[in-house]
Amino acid sequence: MGDASENRDVGGEVSRLVEQAKELQDSAAALISRTSREEDALRLRVASLDSRINSFRNTQHANRLEGELIRAQYILSEGDAAAFLPSKSHGRFLRMFLGPINVRANRKDVQLKVKEEYNNFRDRTAYLFLFFPSLLLILRSWVWEGCLPALPVQLYQAWLLYLYTGLALRENILRVNGSDIRPWWIKHHYCAMAMALISLTWEIETGPDCAQKQTGIQLFLKWAIMQGVAMILQNRYQRQRLYTRIALGKARRMDVVWGETAAVQGQLLLLCPILFVLQGFEAYVGVLLLKTALAGFICEWQVITCGILLIIMAVGNFANTVQTLVTKSQVKARMRGRTRQDVDQ
Amino acid sequence: MGDASENRDVGGEVSRLVEQAKELQDSAAALISRTSREEDALRLRVASLDSRINSFRNTQHANRLEGELIRAQYILSEGDAAAFLPSKSHGRFLRMFLGPINVRANRKDVQLKVKEEYNNFRDRTAYLFLFFPSLLLILRSWVWEGCLPALPVQLYQAWLLYLYTGLALRENILRVNGSDIRPWWIKHHYCAMAMALISLTWEIETGPDCAQKQTGIQLFLKWAIMQGVAMILQNRYQRQRLYTRIALGKARRMDVVWGETAAVQGQLLLLCPILFVLQGFEAYVGVLLLKTALAGFICEWQVITCGILLIIMAVGNFANTVQTLVTKSQVKARMRGRTRQDVDQ
Repeated sequence: MGDASENRDVGGEVSRLVEQAKELQDSAAALISRTSREEDALRLRVASLDSRINSFRNTQHANRLEGELIRAQYILSEGDAAAFLPSKSHGRFLRMFLGPINVRANRKDVQLKVKEEYNNFRDRTAYLFLFFPSLLLILRSWVWEGCLPALPVQLYQAWLLYLYTGLALRENILRVNGSDIRPWWIKHHYCAMAMALISLTWEIETGPDCAQKQTGIQLFLKWAIMQGVAMILQNRYQRQRLYTRIALGKARRMDVVWGETAAVQGQLLLLCPILFVLQGFEAYVGVLLLKTALAGFICEWQVITCGILLIIMAVGNFANTVQTLVTKSQVKARMRGRTRQDVDQ
Repeated sequence: MGDASENRDVGGEVSRLVEQAKELQDSAAALISRTSREEDALRLRVASLDSRINSFRNTQHANRLEGELIRAQYILSEGDAAAFLPSKSHGRFLRMFLGPINVRANRKDVQLKVKEEYNNFRDRTAYLFLFFPSLLLILRSWVWEGCLPALPVQLYQAWLLYLYTGLALRENILRVNGSDIRPWWIKHHYCAMAMALISLTWEIETGPDCAQKQTGIQLFLKWAIMQGVAMILQNRYQRQRLYTRIALGKARRMDVVWGETAAVQGQLLLLCPILFVLQGFEAYVGVLLLKTALAGFICEWQVITCGILLIIMAVGNFANTVQTLVTKSQVKARMRGRTRQDVDQ
């Protein structure tokens, strides 16, 4: 008798649990559908306002009111409304690695956390970028008697592959989250990924005349050290510059200001020559690799492909730097012209 | 005069745009904060109901009502409420590659799309897995006269590295989205990633006695063909089995039923021997690699490490298969026991 009533109690409790599960399922469905309806409505309003501001900015009228229009756009893109701005497509690279998952954060603070972590990742890797190849070259002269052993070099190359894959994935995610990162930098990292992958298949000869046979690897390591120096300089300038521009309301917190675009006038005078020298050195290493391959010391396809990739990257970087400088001077000329107009009026 | 009034009109229009931007920003902030408040409340309720159902399932009482309890849990985990169930942590692997971005979809249909795409990805790759190494071995005997050239093999190895990285990323994403994928399979893919990376640094000798020197690569390719056959068989059985289990309400649509856990009784009798043979062959290839390395034909560290990795994977797969079979028989014994109890009563 006691057992039977206990059984009935348990049965009642269990059916209550099932009832509650159904209720929760209904509330969840209702919440999700209401939220997505409200979000869609907001998305439409944000998109229409954004396009109206843009079409206004393109008309002649707006010239003198551009400051106000920039402010309106800044409000839209810097606050919570940013989550409802039209999203960029995820792109093939992300789909290839992650499938169709959505990587857009719908809260501004999360987006900024992603951005901040990307900057920290770049800072950390810049120092490692300087440290690893330097260590390899130092050990080569002091310990390994002029001849690099294969394993440490290959570990370094595997790290490079991971690093560039991570950077390319993160930059694609940033782009989806509304950052204005330049497409060239992402492509640059695809090239670097290819180069790291190819360099892994590079045969590292360890014979009596290894110094000659390892010319390719040594050039590669020297270029990597230069790259590390450039990355550290760039990261420093960019952060300073980005903070200044954010403070002036000219940049948004999600922007990634890369290399050349980053420097204020005085810094530009310092950074530009360094960048051009680096790009020259990059192309020079590429040509040297091609020459080594053609001279016949090492006639592997890897050396030729890496040489070509380095030259492509150097040319691309150079074109990008020049383009930025041209844009900068055009903007300046326009601003000068506008000030003169104001004075004339 | 006309100019001045036009200017005033434009000015008014621009300040209206700024006003609207502010309004939209406020609506967005309000919507986001309200939604996240409601979502948090729902999350609490779902978590509490879920833990109550679980504690009920663990008590003795519930034995006969377990069907009902499973139904309650099924309602929670299969519908929209699933988005509010406690989330698994993202794990180090995802953070390493993607940073702190959230990859959890908060709508069930998106989660299911991710799952479906993962299955398609696996189907596609299973056939390539069979095709590439077979092609290499066929060309080796018919065209390349017993001696594999380096480039095609390295292209294949690079593809393997991409494949395993993609699988590991997708499986981690599925896990975050509530799939019950077994942790061993993800670890298995980490091992396979390491092996693909190491095999890239493998020197592919092309000399007069290359047949002997390429023993390691040939074993690796043969193992890959076996693996391809197993993947195709597994994928077919798993899909059938998963659909059956979903229809019976025993599995959830997000589950990934891997290998051994997948087969119904009759299929299990066929699949189990195949899996055990494969695992034996995997271990055998590992031991052969170690023997080749120790015999001194190819004494590179890559061969030894790949040998050890293959043996680890074989042992892990074997342990996992046995564990699943034991669990299966325990469940069966319990069910038999329960039926007898019911009859006794």
